[in-house]
Amino acid sequence: MRVHHEKLEVRTHGKGLYEITEKVHSKIDSYGVRNGTVTVFVQHTSCSIVIMENADPTAQGDLEEFFNRLVPEDADYFTHSSEGTDDMPSHIRMVLTRTSETMPIADGKMQLGTWQGIFLFEHRRAPHQRKIFVTIMGE
Amino acid sequence: MRVHHEKLEVRTHGKGLYEITEKVHSKIDSYGVRNGTVTVFVQHTSCSIVIMENADPTAQGDLEEFFNRLVPEDADYFTHSSEGTDDMPSHIRMVLTRTSETMPIADGKMQLGTWQGIFLFEHRRAPHQRKIFVTIMGE
Amino acid sequence: MRVHHEKLEVRTHGKGLYEITEKVHSKIDSYGVRNGTVTVFVQHTSCSIVIMENADPTAQGDLEEFFNRLVPEDADYFTHSSEGTDDMPSHIRMVLTRTSETMPIADGKMQLGTWQGIFLFEHRRAPHQRKIFVTIMGE
Repeated sequence: MRVHHEKLEVRTHGKGLYEITEKVHSKIDSYGVRNGTVTVFVQHTSCSIVIMENADPTAQGDLEEFFNRLVPEDADYFTHSSEGTDDMPSHIRMVLTRTSETMPIADGKMQLGTWQGIFLFEHRRAPHQRKIFVTIMGE
Repeated sequence: MRVHHEKLEVRTHGKGLYEITEKVHSKIDSYGVRNGTVTVFVQHTSCSIVIMENADPTAQGDLEEFFNRLVPEDADYFTHSSEGTDDMPSHIRMVLTRTSETMPIADGKMQLGTWQGIFLFEHRRAPHQRKIFVTIMGE
Repeated sequence: MRVHHEKLEVRTHGKGLYEITEKVHSKIDSYGVRNGTVTVFVQHTSCSIVIMENADPTAQGDLEEFFNRLVPEDADYFTHSSEGTDDMPSHIRMVLTRTSETMPIADGKMQLGTWQGIFLFEHRRAPHQRKIFVTIMGE
């Protein structure tokens, strides 16, 4: 059994979901790992990793709208606002979702369900370059 | 160190928690793994994996009621509704909880705390057959 | 590739974040693992593990206030209240956050981003002794 790390970078341009599923698949393929796990970890506190339906873009728009209402930018009790009104909400949205996700690899393939995709979930308005670690453990 | 995969299927009949703790314990026992981790991954976008108190059923009812209020089925801004009013809420509830969970195995036993149980958290009203990957890594 | 388990205990005194980043770093150092993963798992259902901004304490106060409003202690529909008004909210806050988190280890170091810290997120008012498993897998 071996461990392999790969880095991904994702350029974001505003709040919402950015799919990285194919990039993760290709990292696994490049190592020829047959059985194990792959862990995706994002090195930031203002964006997340989530698994989400990847077929219908209306689901992604509704998700974004839900989070905008759940964590409003104009909450009058926020004191951490040095970087703008989307600063504190970005940390809360991150805490409510995930920083890492671990998926099984079997028969040489990441075992996602039919409708599952892996996404970087951006919580900031401004463009960002996001860094992700992909760790493949297996044999 | 080796990796073992097992599949679980859970038949659900409406929203709420379905405990799978004993099934995961028995998969670990069957391989005789002494030290490592076990990762439980659900292959769907409309149900989740959560760890929850397993002693008092009133806690599970309150949890379900909280999520019904947090993500109401009749939110007027949802556009992703082709499969019914519980469709979009099911994706949001999944994003707010977890698709995978990783637990330590030490001395041949999964190291849950006294009150912890592992549950599939169903977010759809209709019956579903849910598929779960259990990945045991260890020695 | 080997697996190493370590236990951490954290003494809490009320709701909020308690940083454990340095303790996790030192466990990794003590084994000299160069490449792999570290999984932090908390053995309770009324506190969580989260990654959060570790630079500005105002962000931690705002996070606590957000959760107090999202999961109010005086919700009139809670029935699981035998241990007090913060009992059921503590389980909900745990389900909305995380019980485990997995971080990459590369070049002998846990690969957190610049602003990321690992925290125990306490959801109970009374003091508690919290037990955490730190599992290091690698070579």
